[in-house]
Amino acid sequence: MTTKWVRFIQAGTIGFGKLDGDTVHEHRGDMFTESQATGADFALASLRLLTPTVPSKVIGLWNNFKALGEKQGLEAPPEPLYFLKAPNSFLASGEDIRKPPLDARVIFEGELGIVIGKTCTAVSEPQALDHVFGYTCANDVTVPEILGRDATFAQWTRAKSFDTFCPMGPVVATSLDPATLTVKTTLEGRVRQNYPISDMRFSVQQLVSLISHDMTLHPGDVILCGTSVGVCPMKPGSLVEVEIDGIGRLSNRFV
Amino acid sequence: MTTKWVRFIQAGTIGFGKLDGDTVHEHRGDMFTESQATGADFALASLRLLTPTVPSKVIGLWNNFKALGEKQGLEAPPEPLYFLKAPNSFLASGEDIRKPPLDARVIFEGELGIVIGKTCTAVSEPQALDHVFGYTCANDVTVPEILGRDATFAQWTRAKSFDTFCPMGPVVATSLDPATLTVKTTLEGRVRQNYPISDMRFSVQQLVSLISHDMTLHPGDVILCGTSVGVCPMKPGSLVEVEIDGIGRLSNRFV
Repeated sequence: MTTKWVRFIQAGTIGFGKLDGDTVHEHRGDMFTESQATGADFALASLRLLTPTVPSKVIGLWNNFKALGEKQGLEAPPEPLYFLKAPNSFLASGEDIRKPPLDARVIFEGELGIVIGKTCTAVSEPQALDHVFGYTCANDVTVPEILGRDATFAQWTRAKSFDTFCPMGPVVATSLDPATLTVKTTLEGRVRQNYPISDMRFSVQQLVSLISHDMTLHPGDVILCGTSVGVCPMKPGSLVEVEIDGIGRLSNRFV
Repeated sequence: MTTKWVRFIQAGTIGFGKLDGDTVHEHRGDMFTESQATGADFALASLRLLTPTVPSKVIGLWNNFKALGEKQGLEAPPEPLYFLKAPNSFLASGEDIRKPPLDARVIFEGELGIVIGKTCTAVSEPQALDHVFGYTCANDVTVPEILGRDATFAQWTRAKSFDTFCPMGPVVATSLDPATLTVKTTLEGRVRQNYPISDMRFSVQQLVSLISHDMTLHPGDVILCGTSVGVCPMKPGSLVEVEIDGIGRLSNRFV
């Protein structure tokens, strides 16, 4: 059965718990291994949510969906192609994505986030899902103009790591089959992206296994699976939401 | 006067202190703001050193030295070009750099690391040094073959973020003028790099100011200034050392 975990601040203290409808049952202990209910319940609306985990790193995939790759004339890469998003970019649901002081378009990219649950180094594909704790919604916010403006050096880090450029949440949902999920992104209520995770070039099992051969993954680390067709620029003031049935809706305003 | 700070594990507990010759005077409190001597002293040789800070991010510069840029036919970039090294790559002095299970050359890149002391967002150049805590020695270990092997996507993250690929230390040294420093890298005792920081395209002040306009920098974050001429591959078993007078010698074996 799916459990939806949230992290929050309540009365100045950071806590976590299980979301059940509109109620959060507070827990103590370790979200990834063992925790117990404290007995305290909070109305979801009374809490300020935090990112669902505190990742040591967030890895983002590029060219991982067939539909977008084909539209852009990109062949399937022989290995996952990825970058890092800096921790200063991490943002909770409900918080504002801030426009950097640049005269440049800022786009959303609705994505599925894989949340690691157990430390893994060089895990095999059949063992990969044992190391996944659950899934979250994410928005890989990007300034596309920066990516290619230096011919000698593709600026992935800079284009994707401005403060507030990595919203994640609102929950981590466990026990899902990622291949059945669909990512829907809306801008001011209008559906802009609506694509199936089954269209990924590298599956969740392959991503976790292959990346864990390069870098040790730690509990709370997040792999953003890449995006598909439908990304577009955001106007200041607009609400952008990434919704995945079975997980929830990540909601942020671009200001 | 320069203070040299170290972090260490002693009797299973993480501590920090001031290095004075071969003795470490343990401190408590916050290295970056205010700390007091505990009265306990340890012989440096009795301690296992840790990375001198726990960075939320390590930013690495590319094409930041005139001598190397000219040798490679690269013009001065109009803005700093940088990537991130993942936290699983962070390594202390004295620890082993581990060869990834790949049939590929692994090179060292001896570098100066700028250690941030105060949170900074969009600081001006004249104010930048007020936000620098000190300087450390670093080795930006890289698998060059990976960088360019996919024509559609330069793999900076992957080439530079294998476990143990970011040695830093042994100390953070405060109150230095970075423009006077020289980076010397030796492989098995033979000098391979010996270059002045004054040859940087972007100075320490410019790097901190410009990068802080993109990303908020936090205490303990490290900016690797980029490398210059003389990098070369390491053979398994060889000792690689990055020495900067006024800071110290970062010493790691490649295994």
